[in-house]
Amino acid sequence: MSSTPVTHLDTLQRLADVIESRKPANGGDPEKSYVSRLLHKGPDAFLKKIGEEATETVMAAKDVDHGGDASKLVYEVADLWFHSMIALAHYGLKPSDVIDELARREGLSGLEEKALRKAQAREAAGE
Amino acid sequence: MSSTPVTHLDTLQRLADVIESRKPANGGDPEKSYVSRLLHKGPDAFLKKIGEEATETVMAAKDVDHGGDASKLVYEVADLWFHSMIALAHYGLKPSDVIDELARREGLSGLEEKALRKAQAREAAGE
Amino acid sequence: MSSTPVTHLDTLQRLADVIESRKPANGGDPEKSYVSRLLHKGPDAFLKKIGEEATETVMAAKDVDHGGDASKLVYEVADLWFHSMIALAHYGLKPSDVIDELARREGLSGLEEKALRKAQAREAAGE
Amino acid sequence: MSSTPVTHLDTLQRLADVIESRKPANGGDPEKSYVSRLLHKGPDAFLKKIGEEATETVMAAKDVDHGGDASKLVYEVADLWFHSMIALAHYGLKPSDVIDELARREGLSGLEEKALRKAQAREAAGE
Repeated sequence: MSSTPVTHLDTLQRLADVIESRKPANGGDPEKSYVSRLLHKGPDAFLKKIGEEATETVMAAKDVDHGGDASKLVYEVADLWFHSMIALAHYGLKPSDVIDELARREGLSGLEEKALRKAQAREAAGE
Repeated sequence: MSSTPVTHLDTLQRLADVIESRKPANGGDPEKSYVSRLLHKGPDAFLKKIGEEATETVMAAKDVDHGGDASKLVYEVADLWFHSMIALAHYGLKPSDVIDELARREGLSGLEEKALRKAQAREAAGE
Repeated sequence: MSSTPVTHLDTLQRLADVIESRKPANGGDPEKSYVSRLLHKGPDAFLKKIGEEATETVMAAKDVDHGGDASKLVYEVADLWFHSMIALAHYGLKPSDVIDELARREGLSGLEEKALRKAQAREAAGE
Repeated sequence: MSSTPVTHLDTLQRLADVIESRKPANGGDPEKSYVSRLLHKGPDAFLKKIGEEATETVMAAKDVDHGGDASKLVYEVADLWFHSMIALAHYGLKPSDVIDELARREGLSGLEEKALRKAQAREAAGE
């Protein structure tokens, strides 16, 4: 979008660092920080948000199909990824773990071949 | 998609480029590519996957809570982000749009303050 | 569970009647009733709850797998069905419409045959 | 499952009985029955379907908002309830457990009061 030398992963990692600092064990205060509060409440609190934000993403996309604002969709996907990152932090994982997994898919050929074979089988079966 | 000078580190943008090339309008073949196939089938096909992958992320996280393998969670979050990116591509959006939105949250203070106020109100109400 | 002659559909329909009476057009007051409030806010408000309650159902089930309380699962499924019924009411549908559709599945043979064929095809494809 | 004198109207209980008979432990054959197959594969298989069907319900509702067919929504809600019932069966629960919980909500006053108080607090907080 610009000529910034900052990579996407840089931004994700900086955001992950902020989330890390919000862990109650690292001094995050559930009374002052939304992220600290979710982490303090435990997995069900932030996992529930992942289901909720996925649904909001789907609704925003359906609205774009019918003339709605695409920026709403961007906002909901950001919310979905943000709450995924809170979950990753809780389990000691980093965005680079996800990006590494996605990098494998960049050379999609092999992965697509497998996924496609499955999808075609489903279609052949009349789904 | 644009003339953005993407560095070699930008896995997300490179993956978005691959997805872009899989669009049927760009020559992607639904018989040979999983992504082309989803894009060819239309929004409900890939939006449904977002709901499904969110659920799989939640289940993998619950399993980690009970001694399960964290790499399964990484895999499911990657699947969730990957299918989000297919949706973004369909609507003419880029991962950098999401990353820009997330960058705003990196300086979380203001955003957290608002989200926290809401969450505290909920808790005060006995939720 | 008891020898009550009241059918499940009777209970669902009575609940649907209560929901119907909560519609703002029928005098329901968003300041006094949770259901009126959701209906007043519009589809996104109660549809989002369906995604959220589905996620809570899945989490409660995973907890039962690990020794948790099954009554929590009952509660979450009830929440899921309850919010489905608010959506049905909004769109002028009744629980009997859903029950009629389910009755078709009671004689599952034909439906299972089709669903099974699909599922086996997926498995054959290595999913 | 019990000695409940089920009337001919109790579609949900009759469907639950069919599901019960599909359990592999009761002779259900995963090679011949879709339900047996899901039960044989274990919780993740049918829980994932709950997340998927919730998303399809939300998409069908959004389509009705834009002129789509309401019968599609009925079909998706039936799918959602059906897969919920497979989960209930797996955990030794019955639809009457859910219906009993819903019956409590029929006299919604007390429950609505609590839910409303929460929702109003959220709104007051600017959500």
